Amino acid sequence: MAPPTETLTAERILEATEEVLRRHGPAKATVVDVARALGVSHGSVYRHFRTKAALREAVTKRWLDRTAERLAGIVVADGTPEERLRAWLAALFEAKRHKAGDDPELFATYTVLTDEVGTVVGEHIADLTAQLTRIIADGAGSGTFAVPDPAAAARAVFQATGRFHDPCYAREWTTPGVDEEFTAVVDLLVRGLSSRSR
Amino acid sequence: MAPPTETLTAERILEATEEVLRRHGPAKATVVDVARALGVSHGSVYRHFRTKAALREAVTKRWLDRTAERLAGIVVADGTPEERLRAWLAALFEAKRHKAGDDPELFATYTVLTDEVGTVVGEHIADLTAQLTRIIADGAGSGTFAVPDPAAAARAVFQATGRFHDPCYAREWTTPGVDEEFTAVVDLLVRGLSSRSR
Repeated sequence: MAPPTETLTAERILEATEEVLRRHGPAKATVVDVARALGVSHGSVYRHFRTKAALREAVTKRWLDRTAERLAGIVVADGTPEERLRAWLAALFEAKRHKAGDDPELFATYTVLTDEVGTVVGEHIADLTAQLTRIIADGAGSGTFAVPDPAAAARAVFQATGRFHDPCYAREWTTPGVDEEFTAVVDLLVRGLSSRSR
Repeated sequence: MAPPTETLTAERILEATEEVLRRHGPAKATVVDVARALGVSHGSVYRHFRTKAALREAVTKRWLDRTAERLAGIVVADGTPEERLRAWLAALFEAKRHKAGDDPELFATYTVLTDEVGTVVGEHIADLTAQLTRIIADGAGSGTFAVPDPAAAARAVFQATGRFHDPCYAREWTTPGVDEEFTAVVDLLVRGLSSRSR
C-alpha cells in the first residue's frame, strides 16, 4: 500500500489500476480495490475518473499509448523510408509480442478491455496508421514508393500485417518460423509499395 | 426425425450433427442428441465415429471443405493468374462473410470447434495455401509474377489477407468501406507479386 500522504495523481491511480487488474482480472477488479491499493477512499478515485468505465478506458489508453510512443521515434529517425517502414513494423510486432509474452495475464486482461472500449482502440489504430502514413508519404515524396494515396496505403499495410500485431493472433507469435513469415509479408508489401510500373 | 429405415451413412450423421450443433450450441450438443435426431441408438453413431471428438472433428472438416471445394474451381478456371488470384481471394472473403452473416449461431459454433481441432484447421489452411500456390506458380511460369518461391508467396498472401477470411475479424466484415479495404490490400499484394525490378 502506498503512503497516503503522496499526492494522488491520475497517473498514480492508473498505475494502481493496472496492478489491480493484473491481480484480480478484468471481471473482478473494482474501484474499491484500486482505492484500497492506494490507501485512499473510493471518492478520491472518482474525483479523477468519474466512472469505473472512464477508469478502464483511461488505463487501456495508457497501455496502448506506451506502444505508440515507442514507435513514434522511428517515424522521425534517420534512414530511408523503406528502412523506417521495416523498422516500424518490426518494432510493432516486437512490442506486442513482448507484452503478450512477458505478462500473459495482463495481456489477456487488456485484450478483454480493448473489446469493451472500441473508441480508444479506434483512436490507437488511427494514431498508428498516421505514423505509418508519414513514413510512406516520405517515401512517396522521395520517389522510393509509388503511392498515390499514402493514407490508404498505410491502412492497407497495417491491415495486411495484422497477423503480427493483432491480439487475436497472439498464440501464433511464438510458433517456429513466425519471424520468417513476418519478413515474407513485409517484403511483399514493400515490393508492392515500391513498384514503379504497371 | 428421419425415418430409421434409411441407411445410416457418415454423411447423414454429419448432417444431423450440424443441425444438433445449430440448435444446442457446441457446449451442450451430445452424441445422444445426434442419435435421437436420426432415430438410431448412440451405438450406431459410434460405429461411424468412434468418439465424440472424432465426430466434432469430422463435422468441422466437412464445413471447412465446403469452402475449399468452392474455391478449387477458380484455380483451374480460365483467366490470367492475376485475375484468378483476385477472384480466388474475393471468393474466399465472400464465402466466409456469407457463412458468418447467413447463420451467425452456426458460425459462432464452428469458431468454437475450430479452436478445438487445430489439426483439421491446419490441414484446411494447407489446402487453401496449396490452391493459392498453384495460381501463383502459374503466374511465375508465365512471367506475370516475379516470385522465386510460389509456396512462400502463397503463405504470405494468405496471411496478409487474414482480415478478410479469419473468423476473428468476422465483426469487421459488414462495416462500411470493408470492400474498399479488401481491394486496397489485394492491389498492394498483386503489385508486390508483379514487381519486376528491385
